[in-house]
Amino acid sequence: MAKKTDIKKPIAKKAAKPQVDAAGKGELKPDLAEVRTQIDGIDRRIQELIAERAQWAHQVGKAKGKLAAAVDYYRPEREAQVLRKVVDRNDGPLSDEVLVRLFREVMSACLAQQEPLKIGYLGPEGTFSQQAVHKHFGHSAHGLPLASIEEVFQEVAAGNADFGVVPVENSGQGTIQVTLDLFLTSPLKICGEVELRVHQHLLSRSGRIEDIERIYAHPQAFAQTGGWLRTHLPKAEKVPVSSNAEGARRARNADDSAAIAGESAAHVYGLKKIAGPIEDRSDNTTRFLVLGRESFPSSGHDRTSLLVFIRDRPGALYGVLEPLARRGISMNRIESRPAHGHLWQYAFFIDVAGHRDESPLKDALDEIADKGDEVRVLGSYPVAIL
Amino acid sequence: MAKKTDIKKPIAKKAAKPQVDAAGKGELKPDLAEVRTQIDGIDRRIQELIAERAQWAHQVGKAKGKLAAAVDYYRPEREAQVLRKVVDRNDGPLSDEVLVRLFREVMSACLAQQEPLKIGYLGPEGTFSQQAVHKHFGHSAHGLPLASIEEVFQEVAAGNADFGVVPVENSGQGTIQVTLDLFLTSPLKICGEVELRVHQHLLSRSGRIEDIERIYAHPQAFAQTGGWLRTHLPKAEKVPVSSNAEGARRARNADDSAAIAGESAAHVYGLKKIAGPIEDRSDNTTRFLVLGRESFPSSGHDRTSLLVFIRDRPGALYGVLEPLARRGISMNRIESRPAHGHLWQYAFFIDVAGHRDESPLKDALDEIADKGDEVRVLGSYPVAIL
Repeated sequence: MAKKTDIKKPIAKKAAKPQVDAAGKGELKPDLAEVRTQIDGIDRRIQELIAERAQWAHQVGKAKGKLAAAVDYYRPEREAQVLRKVVDRNDGPLSDEVLVRLFREVMSACLAQQEPLKIGYLGPEGTFSQQAVHKHFGHSAHGLPLASIEEVFQEVAAGNADFGVVPVENSGQGTIQVTLDLFLTSPLKICGEVELRVHQHLLSRSGRIEDIERIYAHPQAFAQTGGWLRTHLPKAEKVPVSSNAEGARRARNADDSAAIAGESAAHVYGLKKIAGPIEDRSDNTTRFLVLGRESFPSSGHDRTSLLVFIRDRPGALYGVLEPLARRGISMNRIESRPAHGHLWQYAFFIDVAGHRDESPLKDALDEIADKGDEVRVLGSYPVAIL
Repeated sequence: MAKKTDIKKPIAKKAAKPQVDAAGKGELKPDLAEVRTQIDGIDRRIQELIAERAQWAHQVGKAKGKLAAAVDYYRPEREAQVLRKVVDRNDGPLSDEVLVRLFREVMSACLAQQEPLKIGYLGPEGTFSQQAVHKHFGHSAHGLPLASIEEVFQEVAAGNADFGVVPVENSGQGTIQVTLDLFLTSPLKICGEVELRVHQHLLSRSGRIEDIERIYAHPQAFAQTGGWLRTHLPKAEKVPVSSNAEGARRARNADDSAAIAGESAAHVYGLKKIAGPIEDRSDNTTRFLVLGRESFPSSGHDRTSLLVFIRDRPGALYGVLEPLARRGISMNRIESRPAHGHLWQYAFFIDVAGHRDESPLKDALDEIADKGDEVRVLGSYPVAIL
């Protein structure tokens, strides 16, 4: 889960010392014109370095043998390494989160010099999925809003999108089953994960909780706020709608109705905030997977998603888990699903630490394969960075 | 109007020379590991410079006398100057547009160290207005989606938002009257402008133009594509809806219907593209104004919006325009509106080149005031940068 970063880190020691008036008067209040001159000099140097970086990135594209499109030399494991270095050497004053975003944008711009990445996601625009696309690929990538999670899989498989971003899990409410089920039949690989914090608010026209007899929200939003609603509005009727935006639209038209909606939508449709955040877990995070057509090498800090098909349940599952446990490979998540139309009866989705090409996970996977269990590696990918 | 920039600018001369293999082997194809080492070194230097910049920006905040919120030391004229320098010294390979975006993000991050700017805009999220907010203020500012343009004015005036972003003009279709009319009674100042290119596409379920008997779109989208529709679909019924997204939703449910929708929404709701871009003017741009509570000094390349109240029309208007024309002050735009409930009969919105505090505009405004005509300066602000 994304860790909250502290903005007030200690001031960097290596950088220049703007604390003292650069004009040498020894005052603590710097002269505004002098500060601006300093900043102009810094900007000029930043710009030279960004240009130089873009030229090197361009060379990487050429090294691939032709005037490559971004998809030909996009390397998720390399991006993860670059961003981890950014976090490691951050001495402030900017937060890790802000710096990671800036460097994602720099990489995104360098990568998009020939032809930008096309990223399919569950539309429409303005959804959390679009935010996840921008967070992971930066704004120089081209987002392609699609009508369903299934269509995201299809468009990536067909090559109409280079990558796809699909929601897979909410920390409070659990798995998005449709996404997992699509992996049962899809040949796509997981090549990244993105985590987004989500806050829910209760909104209504009047802003008075005593008026509320009905609440509109997407079923997931109800699931995320169930505890709060039971305590504060136990008698209100809960009406599931297709999206929280749709719920807010409806709440606008009635005095006795409220809607549950996302953080920055608090003011949408002229509704007032009754309470928020109201999600039951304060670390309410949605996790997205990045879908691609190929596998990528290790970034040094990876996770691997496995799909295991099991015929007779108890013993076979143990046969898969034991080689992992014996090697001390930690498991983040296991989830069983009926394997529709498959020879085996159950499918297990298992997330483990490590990369498929590296020990100890590689050895464990070899051992499981030797036993004859069917294990598909859905992908090895860098653990989400902030 | 935003000028289209060319991505393939000549390679910078000042920067290092990644064209030659840095390992000295004289090959044109660089070694990937070597390129990555170079890029890592560049990233480290960029990061040091960004940290240094953030510390200087922090000093600007302290120079204002306290631990200031972003709104206390946000200077639009200074940001415009910084971005113009970025464009002036750009030798490629990245486009001006991409570099301006990167530097806006750097400034946005440096400014948001204490408390980010709160920017009201016409919601919901995912609209062009939100894009305009991000384009102008960067992603470290906090966007506040509001239910109407009127509410944006109200929330800025009440101090609940630091600034507001409202659409005012579309290059093809003309003025958004409600925005102009709100200036008749609002005390707010214009302190910036943002320009966004907008492309429209014709979408339907089948993607076949011969099936289409009905088109859904927002009235503005119809206005922007009238010429194309008259030529290609003269007999189709045009059904105005509240938003293009709503139109796309409806077109999804019928074989004989199409929708007009924005560029990156081409794939929303599983519709296929029949044709696009279909706007009549290829430089189809929406212009937004930035609203604030105070005036800012000159950036060196500014525009001033005037509101002139006129009692008896012909002579009085000439009295206002003549002092401008005589001084060679160019006028970008003039638009008359009935001045509801005002002593005078007509209001004219006039955009002119220059800043209110600088000659020759200052002299012209003084002369007009001496004549007794009522001229309100709505704001002097930097001309949009890309």
